Amino acid sequence: MKALEEKIIKEGQVVSDSILKVGSFLNQQLDPIFMHEMGKEIYSLFKDCGVTKVLTIEASGIAIALAAAYYFHTPAVFAKKSKSSNVAHDVLTANVKSFTRNTTYEICVSSEYITKDDTVLIVDDFLASGNALNGLIEIVESAGAKVAGISVAIEKGFQGGGDELRGRGIRLESLAIIEEMSEGNIVFRR
Amino acid sequence: MKALEEKIIKEGQVVSDSILKVGSFLNQQLDPIFMHEMGKEIYSLFKDCGVTKVLTIEASGIAIALAAAYYFHTPAVFAKKSKSSNVAHDVLTANVKSFTRNTTYEICVSSEYITKDDTVLIVDDFLASGNALNGLIEIVESAGAKVAGISVAIEKGFQGGGDELRGRGIRLESLAIIEEMSEGNIVFRR
Repeated sequence: MKALEEKIIKEGQVVSDSILKVGSFLNQQLDPIFMHEMGKEIYSLFKDCGVTKVLTIEASGIAIALAAAYYFHTPAVFAKKSKSSNVAHDVLTANVKSFTRNTTYEICVSSEYITKDDTVLIVDDFLASGNALNGLIEIVESAGAKVAGISVAIEKGFQGGGDELRGRGIRLESLAIIEEMSEGNIVFRR
Repeated sequence: MKALEEKIIKEGQVVSDSILKVGSFLNQQLDPIFMHEMGKEIYSLFKDCGVTKVLTIEASGIAIALAAAYYFHTPAVFAKKSKSSNVAHDVLTANVKSFTRNTTYEICVSSEYITKDDTVLIVDDFLASGNALNGLIEIVESAGAKVAGISVAIEKGFQGGGDELRGRGIRLESLAIIEEMSEGNIVFRR
């Protein structure tokens, strides 16, 4: 997605070899109009796949999932990172290793929101090692539902998680794939 | 907002005297079309207030803040509940006591996203005791910015947080105010 690549070049900050800061439009601060453009693009990529739910993980995946779900006319569901007193006891869970925090945490979704009749599109803002997405796939499969595919805004191609998912035959559509980056230099995959 | 009251009656579950579960459309599972209707309603209430940013707190406030910001044509900003390695050092912080978890946590926003030139509309999904909103007000004030007002989807009027905010002269618009609730019975404030 050309407009996303341009926004990354214009507003992104390469903090280290592996961390790209896009807090000005994709997390912390959200650009709602641009979020909708990305949602529409995701819809156009998966519109023929019978998607019944868009699934993401809190917190920064929520905005892009909501924007995509708006065009699919389906609910967006987000996995929570820990059990709260508001989540029902009947939950689907998976363990995820955090890349930025270097910890392992449990994600969960109430089983009433993903069922065996669902065809689920998994959406997130970032794809690095793919740990969060693998947790979401595990949740969809444990519900007996079907994974329609995965779409992320920004894939850090050099961290390998995306290609590992593609290697497993999962349809993954990233709106922008960064092949390499360093201060002042971001190269996209063609 | 009539449509919200109807949705609460239809889909809400009163779990206890103080906990209302609306996970089917407002948190966990999000109804994107209805979220936009609420965003549009919030816009119509505050459209003449010179709003430059919509501020909320992760995670379940993000969806309604994004939908509102879409109509204001402004960014939505969300406060994070703990510092991550992706948040800059220059942050605005406040302490918040959690109602559902009975703990105190720090919320933070990068100072680059709320500045003294901003007029901020604070938005959230729920208002109970008002602790989260008070933390967000503190963040806006510490940035030297102006609070345009507060809008929440559901105010639990019987918990007093909303009336305390109104008593301080803050303009608070709740799309639905629950005066009392028990199993099978929800009474809205008129």
